[in-house]
Amino acid sequence: MNFEFYNPTRLIFGAGSLNRLGEIVKEKGSRALLVIGGGSVKRNGTFQRAVTSLEQTGVTVVECSGIEPNPRITSVARGAQIAREENCDVIVALGGGSTMDASKVIAAAALYHGDPWDLIGHGQEDWVIPTKALPVVTIPTLAATGSEMNAAAVISNEETKIKSFVQSDALYPTAAVVDPELTLTVPQDQTAYGVCDIIVHVTEAYFNGIDGTPIQDHFAEGIILNTIEYGKRAVADGNDLEARAQLQWASILALNGFMAAGMNPAGFPVHMIEHAISAHHDITHGAGLAIVNPAWMKFAANHRPTKFVQFAERIFGLQAKSNDDMDCALAGIAAYEEFLKSIGCPTRLKEVGIGDELLAQYAEDSALVLRDGEGKLLSRPAMSKDDIVTVLKTAL
Amino acid sequence: MNFEFYNPTRLIFGAGSLNRLGEIVKEKGSRALLVIGGGSVKRNGTFQRAVTSLEQTGVTVVECSGIEPNPRITSVARGAQIAREENCDVIVALGGGSTMDASKVIAAAALYHGDPWDLIGHGQEDWVIPTKALPVVTIPTLAATGSEMNAAAVISNEETKIKSFVQSDALYPTAAVVDPELTLTVPQDQTAYGVCDIIVHVTEAYFNGIDGTPIQDHFAEGIILNTIEYGKRAVADGNDLEARAQLQWASILALNGFMAAGMNPAGFPVHMIEHAISAHHDITHGAGLAIVNPAWMKFAANHRPTKFVQFAERIFGLQAKSNDDMDCALAGIAAYEEFLKSIGCPTRLKEVGIGDELLAQYAEDSALVLRDGEGKLLSRPAMSKDDIVTVLKTAL
Repeated sequence: MNFEFYNPTRLIFGAGSLNRLGEIVKEKGSRALLVIGGGSVKRNGTFQRAVTSLEQTGVTVVECSGIEPNPRITSVARGAQIAREENCDVIVALGGGSTMDASKVIAAAALYHGDPWDLIGHGQEDWVIPTKALPVVTIPTLAATGSEMNAAAVISNEETKIKSFVQSDALYPTAAVVDPELTLTVPQDQTAYGVCDIIVHVTEAYFNGIDGTPIQDHFAEGIILNTIEYGKRAVADGNDLEARAQLQWASILALNGFMAAGMNPAGFPVHMIEHAISAHHDITHGAGLAIVNPAWMKFAANHRPTKFVQFAERIFGLQAKSNDDMDCALAGIAAYEEFLKSIGCPTRLKEVGIGDELLAQYAEDSALVLRDGEGKLLSRPAMSKDDIVTVLKTAL
Repeated sequence: MNFEFYNPTRLIFGAGSLNRLGEIVKEKGSRALLVIGGGSVKRNGTFQRAVTSLEQTGVTVVECSGIEPNPRITSVARGAQIAREENCDVIVALGGGSTMDASKVIAAAALYHGDPWDLIGHGQEDWVIPTKALPVVTIPTLAATGSEMNAAAVISNEETKIKSFVQSDALYPTAAVVDPELTLTVPQDQTAYGVCDIIVHVTEAYFNGIDGTPIQDHFAEGIILNTIEYGKRAVADGNDLEARAQLQWASILALNGFMAAGMNPAGFPVHMIEHAISAHHDITHGAGLAIVNPAWMKFAANHRPTKFVQFAERIFGLQAKSNDDMDCALAGIAAYEEFLKSIGCPTRLKEVGIGDELLAQYAEDSALVLRDGEGKLLSRPAMSKDDIVTVLKTAL
């Protein structure tokens, strides 16, 4: 077990913490670029509360609205330009994963004078990993991506239909103001997709990590168990603040590096495959994950049955006949798929209107960023393009 | 669930990572005060390896040796004086919890011109919490305190017989170089005391936290389960590197803030009581904890049986008849005590030569720092001095 861990984001968690935004941002700057998505935060009053808190502490607010789901590099470029023109010295991201991801790259692009797409890994020879960025304060309005407390961002290029990512210490938010009350208005379907996202962040590490990480396994299983329990509750009753708070906390823990520390997962194959699909079809990331993850698990279980048996036993209370009991492993995956259906998630491509026309293209795009020396998609086991097509056929 | 979390220490974990010390320290300074304890690191060659790594990158080494177990404020003052006189710009702590704790306070005291004891909480009206300190790089040689990646330090005053602590963001080590190979030479008894220390760090949060922290509970239980499993192995065979690595990782997770985030534990009563005892008798902290913790648990279980039932079920696989089944709760505590005995720890004061002469004094000293408005020792439930004496009588 050899690894490094570093996460300097200051987390302020709890109902009502939005009221502390101004106090927190003021420590970092005096002119904030306030980045938002399609405007739901304006309709429900959250935007105005954020502006009031900022202005009360003397922070000037410059608005950058209209970050789309699956945020585009053109939006990043636009945000960076505003930040430069308006001399913003801090970026405030108010929204879901798209808004937070775009904000991180805006913060880096504001200090980079080349094409912002250089900063995103897409198979280019010289990937310009950001080493500096304006300070970012995140305020998530959805429990899903965990972007609020990590150093990663996923950005799409609408021209090339490539959706990819960047990760760098420079992109850690300075602070994350996490107020579960802001998620009470998230619609049922988006809540469910967020639940998928959280669980897949955990399973990507859990199933693609090295062997011999017993403490991390317990952490991962704890997060999954609670995401299932409180996910059901939040989907059933959006106003259940306790469930919202538990999901919000789970979303952070799933992807801030701590849970997976020492697991050293090879790649994030389900994410890479989903990104390839949603770059072409603009489906919600969490919905795409709900489709790809069970299909990928059925493939991977054949190669590493033990961990899937452990998953079946510890998450769903199944009883295995042996450590590599494939029936038990598959029953665990089936139970997981049933859970996804129970909260209203799609689990097949046809449910979101996607057929088999572009399977080879998705496979090609998936392996663009995280591939091994032979061009296979990084995971345990590494996946050939044929393997990816096979998985996607299971998901049709 | 309202809380803040912040831990900016960069963790470099893994067998062999001591070799990277110079590279890591060099980023922070060019004149290192290398702080060590009684000299075991010289006898086993670790000291020379650290010096070589530092000097190879051009870092000048100034030595400060002789930090005692239960480190004294006079040693802190001496270290701070050397750091100032020698213009050290970075502190390197190579040793166990005592060396690391002393190093943190040396780093703060080097920049503070009053009495270093002002920095340690001991009931004084004006506790000077440090707001700045020289950068500190920790290299633990023992899996126990978790001091390598947290912002706390425990220091003793040999004159007043008070052992107390300080915690401040300024005391977070810049980096922790955690190399489990360095712990292979730790003797059997010290290994066992370290195991106690790790578990008590977890139980202090677990039993004194708020209700409704399901993910954190899983984290805590994962750490305890693994500390028991690998603790047995490391005590049985000191050369078991896998067990040493798992313990080392558990020691960090137990007290770097993540496991307890949101639990908001009231005080650390077992630590406060143990500090009071070891300030008078200079017993090893972990051994003192092995004595005090079961006694405290028997007291606390009467007030909050549910969590103790959960502990009995999830850690020792016992079956409760109800959520507040006291027989089950007590059986869990008994099983824990049996585990402590099995690895060679004392569980009664008489085993370390302590009688009932000073029980009232320990109770008085315990409540000096973390007390509520009525002067009771902070915990859930808060403890009167009589309660503390009652607990200690159980431990005689």
